[in-house]
Amino acid sequence: MNSHTTLIISTRGKGLYPFTRQVNEWLRKQPVEDGALIVFIQHTSCSLVIQENADPDVTLDLRDFFERLVPEEGEGYRHTSEGPDDMTSHIRSTLTHTSLTIPLIGGELALGTWQGLYVFEHRAAPHQRRVVLQIMGSSLM
Amino acid sequence: MNSHTTLIISTRGKGLYPFTRQVNEWLRKQPVEDGALIVFIQHTSCSLVIQENADPDVTLDLRDFFERLVPEEGEGYRHTSEGPDDMTSHIRSTLTHTSLTIPLIGGELALGTWQGLYVFEHRAAPHQRRVVLQIMGSSLM
Amino acid sequence: MNSHTTLIISTRGKGLYPFTRQVNEWLRKQPVEDGALIVFIQHTSCSLVIQENADPDVTLDLRDFFERLVPEEGEGYRHTSEGPDDMTSHIRSTLTHTSLTIPLIGGELALGTWQGLYVFEHRAAPHQRRVVLQIMGSSLM
Repeated sequence: MNSHTTLIISTRGKGLYPFTRQVNEWLRKQPVEDGALIVFIQHTSCSLVIQENADPDVTLDLRDFFERLVPEEGEGYRHTSEGPDDMTSHIRSTLTHTSLTIPLIGGELALGTWQGLYVFEHRAAPHQRRVVLQIMGSSLM
Repeated sequence: MNSHTTLIISTRGKGLYPFTRQVNEWLRKQPVEDGALIVFIQHTSCSLVIQENADPDVTLDLRDFFERLVPEEGEGYRHTSEGPDDMTSHIRSTLTHTSLTIPLIGGELALGTWQGLYVFEHRAAPHQRRVVLQIMGSSLM
Repeated sequence: MNSHTTLIISTRGKGLYPFTRQVNEWLRKQPVEDGALIVFIQHTSCSLVIQENADPDVTLDLRDFFERLVPEEGEGYRHTSEGPDDMTSHIRSTLTHTSLTIPLIGGELALGTWQGLYVFEHRAAPHQRRVVLQIMGSSLM
């Protein structure tokens, strides 16, 4: 039996891509009751975010805010070999999250009503992003 | 036996609210020796921070810095249905933390001498905030 | 048997200090197969980052970006007792990470090819920084 898997999330340019549904589909097949799910993205130019799952405007405003906060031009970056969205992607991923840990209670993610999981893509080109899921049992049974 | 609980933290406007004491009170009644505590806030308009627990000026300076970094006015946000502090709260929570994982050693949080746990409230109105605590045993005994 | 240890990372001024090698040296002596490693830094004026391990320019650009994002001068900080890099360090640590959780698969960190672990020092003076490592078994075997 495996306690882990890797999801592949396809991105098509900068922005937030929801993947709560894929996580829940995998979780339903696992035996854990109480514990935690570790979510880990194996890249340094995209990241993880838990944000509102109701109004898509939130994800557009987030994308645009990071575009202003970490500008592509005029910053004098040294690391530019892959274009103007290269170093900005590393900075934006540092300002958000590479790993998240979410309690599992009664076999389900203990997310709030309005919380959803997103891959935050910081590169302009399409990518296939690897997200590792690892279940931890609480081992207090 | 339960390995988890939910704390309700009352907030009264923007700022940092300490809750290390409530966590320790609950932890003292639990049987775990070595492992980790997962701290997870079930909201997208407030967040978690580990910061200095000695000088209250640190929390005031933090609050004011985020007010300048993520301004309420002039940003052209789309998501404004709940007022000018709506989208800023989502951005500020994204820039800080929704989940934290803290080692438990000898039954105690392995915090540094000056570290304390805070709810960072980003909304202007009072709220009741839900923080889930989940204990994980190291299962290496 | 211990499931945890504390690494001491020496820093010599602002910037990113890699420590993936020290983590792997300790991990190799531990019995875990599948689970997770919790990495926790016991300070509020430095932090943890997972970033690119190939081009050192990335770490220099990151350091310089945070110098601009959180300026030492002209912000009207209250908390200045330890100098102009005191409050900026607390803010920069809040914007990055105090705890990280990384899946362990087959006894190894499930890092992506280009990912490395760094202590991000925000103080100008040299410091000895304490990083707690805690192994969690998945307990699903």
